[in-house]
Amino acid sequence: MLRHDQLSQRFAKIFRIHESIAILNWDQAVVMPRGSIESRAEQLATLTQLAHDILASPETSDLIETAMSAAPSDDFQAANHRLMHRAYMRATALDSDFAAYRARVCAHAEVAWREARAEGQYDIFLPHIERVVGVVQQSSLALSSALNLKPYDVLLDEYQPGLREDAIEPLFGELLEALPSRLDAAIANNPQYQGQPFPVPAAKQEVIFKSLMARLGFDFDHGRLDESTHPFCGGVYADHRVTTRYDAMDITSGLMGILHETGHALYEAGLPKEWISQPVGQSHGMLIHESQSLFVEMQICRSPAFLSFLSQVLIEGLGNDLAWDKANLEHCYRQVARSLIRVDADEVTYPLHVIQRYRLERALLANDLMPSDLPGAWSDMANEILGVRPDNDREGCLQDIHWSHGIFGYFPCYTLGALFAAQLARQIRLDLGEFEQSLQSGDFVEIIGWLRNRVHSRASALELDDLVLQSTGTVLGTADFLAHLDNRYLRTAHA
Amino acid sequence: MLRHDQLSQRFAKIFRIHESIAILNWDQAVVMPRGSIESRAEQLATLTQLAHDILASPETSDLIETAMSAAPSDDFQAANHRLMHRAYMRATALDSDFAAYRARVCAHAEVAWREARAEGQYDIFLPHIERVVGVVQQSSLALSSALNLKPYDVLLDEYQPGLREDAIEPLFGELLEALPSRLDAAIANNPQYQGQPFPVPAAKQEVIFKSLMARLGFDFDHGRLDESTHPFCGGVYADHRVTTRYDAMDITSGLMGILHETGHALYEAGLPKEWISQPVGQSHGMLIHESQSLFVEMQICRSPAFLSFLSQVLIEGLGNDLAWDKANLEHCYRQVARSLIRVDADEVTYPLHVIQRYRLERALLANDLMPSDLPGAWSDMANEILGVRPDNDREGCLQDIHWSHGIFGYFPCYTLGALFAAQLARQIRLDLGEFEQSLQSGDFVEIIGWLRNRVHSRASALELDDLVLQSTGTVLGTADFLAHLDNRYLRTAHA
Repeated sequence: MLRHDQLSQRFAKIFRIHESIAILNWDQAVVMPRGSIESRAEQLATLTQLAHDILASPETSDLIETAMSAAPSDDFQAANHRLMHRAYMRATALDSDFAAYRARVCAHAEVAWREARAEGQYDIFLPHIERVVGVVQQSSLALSSALNLKPYDVLLDEYQPGLREDAIEPLFGELLEALPSRLDAAIANNPQYQGQPFPVPAAKQEVIFKSLMARLGFDFDHGRLDESTHPFCGGVYADHRVTTRYDAMDITSGLMGILHETGHALYEAGLPKEWISQPVGQSHGMLIHESQSLFVEMQICRSPAFLSFLSQVLIEGLGNDLAWDKANLEHCYRQVARSLIRVDADEVTYPLHVIQRYRLERALLANDLMPSDLPGAWSDMANEILGVRPDNDREGCLQDIHWSHGIFGYFPCYTLGALFAAQLARQIRLDLGEFEQSLQSGDFVEIIGWLRNRVHSRASALELDDLVLQSTGTVLGTADFLAHLDNRYLRTAHA
Repeated sequence: MLRHDQLSQRFAKIFRIHESIAILNWDQAVVMPRGSIESRAEQLATLTQLAHDILASPETSDLIETAMSAAPSDDFQAANHRLMHRAYMRATALDSDFAAYRARVCAHAEVAWREARAEGQYDIFLPHIERVVGVVQQSSLALSSALNLKPYDVLLDEYQPGLREDAIEPLFGELLEALPSRLDAAIANNPQYQGQPFPVPAAKQEVIFKSLMARLGFDFDHGRLDESTHPFCGGVYADHRVTTRYDAMDITSGLMGILHETGHALYEAGLPKEWISQPVGQSHGMLIHESQSLFVEMQICRSPAFLSFLSQVLIEGLGNDLAWDKANLEHCYRQVARSLIRVDADEVTYPLHVIQRYRLERALLANDLMPSDLPGAWSDMANEILGVRPDNDREGCLQDIHWSHGIFGYFPCYTLGALFAAQLARQIRLDLGEFEQSLQSGDFVEIIGWLRNRVHSRASALELDDLVLQSTGTVLGTADFLAHLDNRYLRTAHA
């Protein structure tokens, strides 16, 4: 049970400031006129600083120490104190002047990255990525001793508490062994159907997107769908803000993105209300978050059964047309290709992109790879792992924003989330039986209810390994994911 | 010149928190899904408390004292310190437990007011208005000694710094003497034209509204026009958020409201950027704010010259139609009537509504009128001053939200703003010459530029009386306003 004491009130205050920041971020991405970017930056900097000051104060430290010395009333309470301590340690381990310097380095690097990508000129980015690698090395070292974690684990742990390189290495090794041959086979098994185009006016797309979101359990009394240049799921616990981009010539370009973001929103909506203002009541980390969006997109919505339901929905909403044939949808949503761009990659290729970035960022941080050699190393590794070589750095090492932001240790979450999603699907089938029939009739209540019970409502109460084990009966592995790929992409005859 | 010292940085922080609150308020009114009202209330309460804590801290007090003991570098600096001191005194004069109690009383009273108005049942509101009058009396007494102001001046000064009851009494006395006979004459002089309806689809209204706003100088790189149930002008200095409500059957219902709100936005946009984060750089108060919106609406946009321009705009945008005839627009925008509802009142009747509320709120606060007797007193005074008696309390004492919010001392700003707007128009004519020709051709650059120089850019640097005197050459009076009414409503032949 939540104790409404001074300590929990402090963290509730921090939470409400972060919620305010989330709404301001949504506003900036969706409605803010461009002329007010400077004042918005000031607002965000002020709120961020206020939240930090509350967290990093000696009073907070004293209250945490006192709380941890008493017996917790239950597991949530205990985990809450543990997470508070972790947050405090992270907030105070870095000298505040250095933290400010780091923020400036990354802000400038992001601007340079945008320019470098637009121009296709890695040279513009080079001095910045050098500085970024430097500050990331320095902060991971400083946090390493404070948190008693290996330097790269410090980074992993920031985005997914409990994630360690020792757990990643064997998993990525297995994938690297298993995927290349499957990639060849999947490409050979691509649907042979001659595709039809999918033009739908934006206003009609919106109606269909909203009906599908509502079917999946998205509550429009606690959320919205809007348009933005870069689709995302933002907002706060009680107010999920999903955005999309409408392409009037192709409804499929936004549709799966919407369903993916809906997976994120359903996770947030399923967190325990009583604990929402506390660290333990919030989402577990990016691996778990990504598992929820990928479960909805990959395990449910790209399945033949769902595409059959989707075909009915589109025919009902848009009239009978060859485009809405299940065969045409399968043609669209079951293509596998050796793509150069991560965000466009299918689920067979995607882990290879992630492993490539994981290896390169480890090498950069270990000084085994100099930033000046990154373009060549990227190109060689793409050729080695993916079997394609980029023509230029825009299709190569300049494609992702993460490193320019100083975000290292994040990429693994995408693929580990996909592994966990496949394990969840396997366990749901064990518990509820095959669910193809439900997907085909657009009934997601039981499936989402299962996720709510086993994952969402547990929030951050369990350690990562325990959450995986208790919800799926096994530790995180590659078997279910590989079986899922085999089943979807390598069976000759398709339902 | 702004000193970037610890003190100004504190106030800049408070300013950015208030900006964040403004965006959250806009979001709540325009886009927020209804299910997240509770979490939004928590966000707003947290930010409000944070801003208050910074302002009311002993460190702030010490810094202000030190700053005021040194010689200011200029008038803005001096005024800034004076306003900081005033803000600090206001923030600390009330015991924080009492302030919290007061906030709760008003929050409950507003809910009760909504219900009472919907049901037309004053009894629902009575116990709440009794408590509200009590807390307003108590806080105005407490502030009275801290600020060395009369209790009612404490209230006036909150919404318009420098406004005093001694200045209001004679002005309202003159209006009460001058208006009733003018009201009769204006009604007798109402346009005799047979009106045509004004139907325009919402999307077309939006295009026309935006073009008119842009003409007046509204910068859509620093602002937006959106839809909301209750139109308002919100947002922040660099990002003005005007809202409207579209009535597809009648473009006139939203049009003047938009232009009125544009007047507010132009004032904010004209504040001095260098000082914007400081008390001295912000808008002067509600009297001055209202003078700017009323200047745009009443002095410019309801003038025959502007209606002639508007007629051309509508014909160009919507095609030739009897509705867009200048005569039809005059018929619509120059009607005078003994209305019961303040917000629908024309500019001849409006001051009478204000004077009625001013007298009643003074009587309530002096205990000369018991809240239980308010409906009868309201009805009698409406009959006495306006010459009409409401059929029920929804058309009577339940029509306005202000008192339920604990807002006493605000109503006079509306009418005093109208007086100042008329003085400004007189002075602009003296300085720039008659401006009817400019209005007719839709050229507002010189007029708005004059306001920017004389009013907007001065922000809060001058005391109220000095601002009025220096911009118009006279103290606040009724002569220009009455002359304006005579000119617009009592001349037999109209341009």
